[in-house]
Amino acid sequence: MAKENKVPTNSVNRKRNSKRRFYTHKKAPKKSAVLPPIEKEKVKISFLGGMNEIGKNMTLYEYKDDMFIVDCGLAFPNAELPGVDLVIPDFTHVVNNAEKIRGIIITHGHEDHIGGLAYLLKQINIPVYATKLTIGLIKGKLEEHGILNSCKLVEIKPRDNITLGAFNIELIHVNHSIPDAVGLAIRCPAGIVIQTGDFKIDTTPVDGDMIDLPRFAEYGKKGCLALLSDSTNAERPGYTMSEKTVGESFELLFRKAKGKRIIVATFASNIHRVQQIIDVAKARGRKVAVVGRSLENLVQVGHDLGYLDIPDNIMIPIDTIRNYPDDKLVIITTGSQGEPMSALTKISQNEHRKVSITPNDYVIISATPIPGNEKMVGNVVNALMKKGVEVIYEKMYEVHVSGHACQEELKLMMGIVKPKFFIPVHGEQKHLMKHAQLGKAMGIEDVFIGEIGNSIEISSDGIKQVADVPAGEVYVDGIGVGDVGNVVLNDRKHLSQDGIIIIVATIDTQSGYVISGPDIVSRGFVYVRDNEELMNAARDVACHVIDEYYDKRYRDWNAVKTKMRDEISRLMYERTKRSPMILPIFMEI
Amino acid sequence: MAKENKVPTNSVNRKRNSKRRFYTHKKAPKKSAVLPPIEKEKVKISFLGGMNEIGKNMTLYEYKDDMFIVDCGLAFPNAELPGVDLVIPDFTHVVNNAEKIRGIIITHGHEDHIGGLAYLLKQINIPVYATKLTIGLIKGKLEEHGILNSCKLVEIKPRDNITLGAFNIELIHVNHSIPDAVGLAIRCPAGIVIQTGDFKIDTTPVDGDMIDLPRFAEYGKKGCLALLSDSTNAERPGYTMSEKTVGESFELLFRKAKGKRIIVATFASNIHRVQQIIDVAKARGRKVAVVGRSLENLVQVGHDLGYLDIPDNIMIPIDTIRNYPDDKLVIITTGSQGEPMSALTKISQNEHRKVSITPNDYVIISATPIPGNEKMVGNVVNALMKKGVEVIYEKMYEVHVSGHACQEELKLMMGIVKPKFFIPVHGEQKHLMKHAQLGKAMGIEDVFIGEIGNSIEISSDGIKQVADVPAGEVYVDGIGVGDVGNVVLNDRKHLSQDGIIIIVATIDTQSGYVISGPDIVSRGFVYVRDNEELMNAARDVACHVIDEYYDKRYRDWNAVKTKMRDEISRLMYERTKRSPMILPIFMEI
Repeated sequence: MAKENKVPTNSVNRKRNSKRRFYTHKKAPKKSAVLPPIEKEKVKISFLGGMNEIGKNMTLYEYKDDMFIVDCGLAFPNAELPGVDLVIPDFTHVVNNAEKIRGIIITHGHEDHIGGLAYLLKQINIPVYATKLTIGLIKGKLEEHGILNSCKLVEIKPRDNITLGAFNIELIHVNHSIPDAVGLAIRCPAGIVIQTGDFKIDTTPVDGDMIDLPRFAEYGKKGCLALLSDSTNAERPGYTMSEKTVGESFELLFRKAKGKRIIVATFASNIHRVQQIIDVAKARGRKVAVVGRSLENLVQVGHDLGYLDIPDNIMIPIDTIRNYPDDKLVIITTGSQGEPMSALTKISQNEHRKVSITPNDYVIISATPIPGNEKMVGNVVNALMKKGVEVIYEKMYEVHVSGHACQEELKLMMGIVKPKFFIPVHGEQKHLMKHAQLGKAMGIEDVFIGEIGNSIEISSDGIKQVADVPAGEVYVDGIGVGDVGNVVLNDRKHLSQDGIIIIVATIDTQSGYVISGPDIVSRGFVYVRDNEELMNAARDVACHVIDEYYDKRYRDWNAVKTKMRDEISRLMYERTKRSPMILPIFMEI
Repeated sequence: MAKENKVPTNSVNRKRNSKRRFYTHKKAPKKSAVLPPIEKEKVKISFLGGMNEIGKNMTLYEYKDDMFIVDCGLAFPNAELPGVDLVIPDFTHVVNNAEKIRGIIITHGHEDHIGGLAYLLKQINIPVYATKLTIGLIKGKLEEHGILNSCKLVEIKPRDNITLGAFNIELIHVNHSIPDAVGLAIRCPAGIVIQTGDFKIDTTPVDGDMIDLPRFAEYGKKGCLALLSDSTNAERPGYTMSEKTVGESFELLFRKAKGKRIIVATFASNIHRVQQIIDVAKARGRKVAVVGRSLENLVQVGHDLGYLDIPDNIMIPIDTIRNYPDDKLVIITTGSQGEPMSALTKISQNEHRKVSITPNDYVIISATPIPGNEKMVGNVVNALMKKGVEVIYEKMYEVHVSGHACQEELKLMMGIVKPKFFIPVHGEQKHLMKHAQLGKAMGIEDVFIGEIGNSIEISSDGIKQVADVPAGEVYVDGIGVGDVGNVVLNDRKHLSQDGIIIIVATIDTQSGYVISGPDIVSRGFVYVRDNEELMNAARDVACHVIDEYYDKRYRDWNAVKTKMRDEISRLMYERTKRSPMILPIFMEI
């Protein structure tokens, strides 16, 4: 049973003889009340996120009156969403079916899998199942949102299985760029569905624990109805390198950095990367300091839960680095994507409170830019180099490996799971398409490429697309969830391009005369002091429009405003070829 | 003498026996009044653009009272410059020295080398020297700006040389992604400076005209004081592939596209790419239509000037494509960088007036994304694939090659020019640094890495950095040049993040009473109708601040405004965790 919380309708079984358990399910189905014959039964899968995008993964499984969710991630906003802090899935469909939802399983602790969870749990309080580290990271999130105490978190292990209504789900260990990641074998009366979660095949992982391919193979032998597999690297041929190769590069580079202070930037969640940095630092007699809030948090959680093996006396507080010579120090920092507010960016601009850069620094950016971040990373590299710092950032040094499977691994997964049907997930259209091609090359005939909101029913007969469910994006801005929509975003985009011109006038409604103004105020348009003549022309137009179009009998301000917007827009475009927002405000007395 | 215009103080010599001319300069210096002995003489080079950036190249050479300029490019704005259309160099230093400037030489017709020229010529009318195609492209620009007739354009050929005051400059043919590109051998009393311009070494170029390495070698043999060389690809090992390989890929892919309509997106300026598309289209019996204004212009100019060999009856107007079956058509389009307003982006969204996409289209994106554009290109690929279109976009198909030299070519150039001093140009810091490392590996001791505004004096004694010259960025927005500065840009950024709240009130200065308002108007902040309570709270705060802080004796509106900004900012941050711009406007009667 659940260790931390009792969950009445669901259960977690932890029989150590996993092989026996597996065959029990097929050989003695009568023992299980929830596993009737599989013929013609249908399982419904709805994609609430993560289809045609990399980010905010969320999948809903449904069999008759039982539903459960896999993952609840967030996405980071693109340039089309100015001011938006993050994007989460639309939970309408889940909330509408609240009484059917038996729980949510989180495959691993990355933001695109856990980042939406706190927002979901505020709307519908369901039990959360995940492995130890993932639970640890989720706890931090829920605490930030002040809902930790009201949530049910159930810690489970790979090869455990969970019963959620009609579903019985086994967790299968996979390799990824964060420890404790799992794939799922989802058993229900319609058959077995395998959802890999994010994975790679690392034959020499840092923690020694290779992906549980034998378990995937057992399900393959048993007969797998459908496979949902990670498409992130479907465009890349070959194999993803082992995380261990990065450690070897660190050994080489730390030797090359002799006499210098070493700064390594990496993803805050990559515990194995941090472990390797610590290991090499220890071997070379260097102390390790950590900078960046998310990384500090990770080191704490990773250490507390036993995922980070930190030798005694190696970690030092960042405030004490000045007490150590450069060649006795390694600083691990966030900001490997060149994020403007991150520690590394601030360090590169000499704006960090605790770390000052010198030419005796040796910076290793242990990451490759996520598409869209290339320019930002380049800016950080350039800024560091201008300060005389040696920067290691190229792929050629193998200071980073991906956490996702490349083509040969993806084909290997299909080859051992042998699914009847295939649904590439976790990717943009181009990744899904390429993954689908790989599937077809592997002989899988029936492949479904979906969109957010799509629902499919799978039975032994095939995949059938059924009516879409409500789904989409919800924008989080500050503490507002969903209060920023297209009108507000279009205004922000308009304002950012050419600024705003505000025309204010006070009008005596009795006489129809303007008794104050019109005053012209602008922001983000032109530097007003250098453009007085233009502002005067705008004022003249405003006066003219009021004189001409304001009729005190009708007092139809909308007509006057529309006319004023048109006229001043035209004036500004003629004079400047720009189109600022025009905002007339009339005060009546 | 100049063909098109007579330029009194300068001259262009076109002796066909270039070898004789070259040696004349050294063997019989007495014949030339402008070439005194070179010992200890200094040439000054100032970098007005293109250093520590890729874009807006502009270099100024100075010897005593003579100056000339190489290139005058533009840069495209990054996300930090919202609403800015383009960025040009600051011409202050050039304008301050107008009487010394003998002319400007343009190395080739790309925007980062010619895009600022019209703005420069409006401020200082100097003769422009360039090869035929480059002049053709410049003419288009100057015509757009309405200054073509007042400008002096001098067409020159490779191996021609030009005398500009104390300088004698020979143009040397190089390979690049646009025809008619040249490097420069700049001779003055201080010695010979070689500026490569953008180049690659293509042993099998489409026009058959390989880079004039022998000429570079002759200068190397003669003794080269300094080399300024293209750093764009200094991070990339090996050689850049020949443009011809792209043609071979087209042959393969056009065969694979059998029965489908082919759409190829490429850079508008790449005439050789367009030529290869036309050649393969002809071989496969397809007509060619062109879409996108810049590409239409290029095809026209390229054809008129003899750089595009267009067979009879192969080009058709884009309006007539519906008269041809899919398998008889190739459409060449702009938008290979996923630019939002480009033809390919519109086509991918089915918003193009003349080209409708169908699953029977086969799209080849013959380009790789410029850093920063990866996401936009990915969006276009995804949009096309969602419409069932097959899209070729990966590097693996070799549908694009760079126009810039990789490491082996860069080293080869240094190896044959054998410069005493080396100045990597045309690159960000990371490119310049890597290029400098290559130079040092080639045995060049004295390497200078500069910034925009830096000036150096070079003599046989070495490179000496001297006082900076005025230099920087000027923003062009609409027809405004330089009227958008940091204040305006910061306002735009602020507005784009959280929008604006405007508080308007009319106040009777006699009584000190508010007689109308305060009214609260917002744009880009929250959807007002759903947030009336918040707006009411803001109004209450505004009333309170006026009551409390307005003193009719002093009428110090600034104090009231400051207080109001603070108070309403605090309210909004408390309630929403956002920081909109707060703009109080008071009208007095």
